[in-house]
Amino acid sequence: MCPLHTFSSVARSHNFAASAVSRRHQFLIRSLGGVRGSASSRRMAAGVTNLSSLGLEADAGSILKRITPPLDSGLHKGQAGKIAVIGGCREYTGAPYFAAISALKIGADLSHVFCTKDAAPVIKSYSPELIVHPVLEESYSIREDEKASVSSLVVAEVKKWMERFDCLVVGPGLGRDAFLMDCISEIMRHARQSNIPIVVDGDGLFLVTNNLGLIAGYSLAVLTPNVNEYKRLVEKVLGRNADDQDAAEQLLSLSRSVGGATILRKGNADLISDGETVSVVSAFGSPRRCGGQGDILSGSVAVFSSWARQQISEHSERLNFSSSNPMVLGCIAGSALLRKAASLAFAENKRATLTTDIIESLGASLEEICPAK
Amino acid sequence: MCPLHTFSSVARSHNFAASAVSRRHQFLIRSLGGVRGSASSRRMAAGVTNLSSLGLEADAGSILKRITPPLDSGLHKGQAGKIAVIGGCREYTGAPYFAAISALKIGADLSHVFCTKDAAPVIKSYSPELIVHPVLEESYSIREDEKASVSSLVVAEVKKWMERFDCLVVGPGLGRDAFLMDCISEIMRHARQSNIPIVVDGDGLFLVTNNLGLIAGYSLAVLTPNVNEYKRLVEKVLGRNADDQDAAEQLLSLSRSVGGATILRKGNADLISDGETVSVVSAFGSPRRCGGQGDILSGSVAVFSSWARQQISEHSERLNFSSSNPMVLGCIAGSALLRKAASLAFAENKRATLTTDIIESLGASLEEICPAK
Repeated sequence: MCPLHTFSSVARSHNFAASAVSRRHQFLIRSLGGVRGSASSRRMAAGVTNLSSLGLEADAGSILKRITPPLDSGLHKGQAGKIAVIGGCREYTGAPYFAAISALKIGADLSHVFCTKDAAPVIKSYSPELIVHPVLEESYSIREDEKASVSSLVVAEVKKWMERFDCLVVGPGLGRDAFLMDCISEIMRHARQSNIPIVVDGDGLFLVTNNLGLIAGYSLAVLTPNVNEYKRLVEKVLGRNADDQDAAEQLLSLSRSVGGATILRKGNADLISDGETVSVVSAFGSPRRCGGQGDILSGSVAVFSSWARQQISEHSERLNFSSSNPMVLGCIAGSALLRKAASLAFAENKRATLTTDIIESLGASLEEICPAK
Repeated sequence: MCPLHTFSSVARSHNFAASAVSRRHQFLIRSLGGVRGSASSRRMAAGVTNLSSLGLEADAGSILKRITPPLDSGLHKGQAGKIAVIGGCREYTGAPYFAAISALKIGADLSHVFCTKDAAPVIKSYSPELIVHPVLEESYSIREDEKASVSSLVVAEVKKWMERFDCLVVGPGLGRDAFLMDCISEIMRHARQSNIPIVVDGDGLFLVTNNLGLIAGYSLAVLTPNVNEYKRLVEKVLGRNADDQDAAEQLLSLSRSVGGATILRKGNADLISDGETVSVVSAFGSPRRCGGQGDILSGSVAVFSSWARQQISEHSERLNFSSSNPMVLGCIAGSALLRKAASLAFAENKRATLTTDIIESLGASLEEICPAK
């Protein structure tokens, strides 16, 4: 376990555009080495930036443990979390399933999926545990003159459930149909009005990158871009190329430029920033890069950030977290858990490791980090 | 194992409204601690009401064992039970599957599902063991002028199978479509005319709470409300709030007010009453509250109450049960089995425990409580 190195404090500011001039590249690096020792953590982190020279901290497990609510027989259904994934279309059905089932496996009580009518029977068939709503529509299935009325219906169908959810995951397997994108934009606006946290991944990031207003200034939004999605986001927001040498500073700057939405930059080491702090999770996971791992992450972040939000609202006086932002804490915990599960799955399945194997390892990973009793 | 404490005898009366004035809050508490010792049973029960001061009895396992018929090579298909689940719509497919497969796993020979046309292929895909009838319709799929004829067809389709079933489970994943609700009302009336027992859960409880006549005075009906469903039922029937302090008395009163239908109030401890006795099952299950556990329970109660009915009709002279009501005995056994299975599943899967894991533990749980040989 490495000590925390604070390079400078970061002034809390929501006027990020205005603060650009005076910004002194202040940031706080917290590296969370997890189950692996500091040497390997350093090697991993060094792949992204010069983080090894900035210090590391291995407290992701501790954060995960502290935001996870104790199992209590007195609770009833729903109190441990209700998550909704908005995604799944004619082409993609695996991604929303991975995100939704991961949320359940981590400990949420109810996991819903809102997808297109074509995708629903398939996603349902993957697991009877999910509640799958066949409500979204793509352009190919509707006439031009129906678009306005169908859009209203789609948005109303999702909206009537909205208040029940602790967090939305927008994007896994969503596709990029223009009509569908417009509906999702409207759904995101409603979620924001209702203060429902939103984790944006996959095609949701395509939407958001082209409509930054959807998440700008919304502190309950999390973006989880991979390498290419991050490149596009940086180009769009900062007007420059993604930088590996000063990755932490650039991420801090990016998050500030979108008004404090939390960004989890996925990579060899995961970097997380809400414009105030930068955290790193660099525990070794798995060298397999099979598709779908990002969906596990988005489902996990949804659950953990919901729990963090609840813990902070109920017990803020004794939590003493490194960040007071539940979305950041949720990202740290989600990243740490995925890496742990990937490492367990890889140890067992080696080159044949698939995303389903990693999902099967979520329980054992949680039990190692945060035992049920 | 704790001795049975009888606080007062309960006069048998079917004129529950009239008996309200003279009722002296008489009730009999039977607590069925099951696999856990009396101390923990007391703690569990105390979470719901002051049951710990009223005495406990741990004979749920014994009841389950005595109502379960011996496995006999001389029997033929169907004699160990034929169950039908009425539920499953465009949105919900997991719930009817959970109820129907649980009935089979416990020992029923045949398990049918009557669901909407959309839901059928998905439910069929979960398991080839089930017989799934795509016969129900929702408003969106029919025109206004077709409603009367479609309703007649739907009811006729279910009715022609009705006499074959030992018990119906009405409600898992049924949805609340107004047209469908009307059809289900009609189906319940037919079941009642044919003396087919009915276990009502989920959206079936929504229907029944708004149409109390469907189950009022029907001694072969069981309602299995969770916390919120119970609240709505108490408010509708008794015109007051659900009471945790005098939970047993309130439940007794509620059951009397609906003419002796059995009510299983699900919670930290399950309370069961038919207006004559109150029983408690408080063995520790699992602290996970993932959706779908109630469906296992409704399927289990259907099987066990059918068996209890058969045992009572064939061997009443030597059974000496604490209640002579097979629906109460079925509830006690179903509750005890679910708790046992949940505890086994949780011991293995910890925080990642899902309803499917609990279903997989039904066999081992039965074998512990009531070995096949």
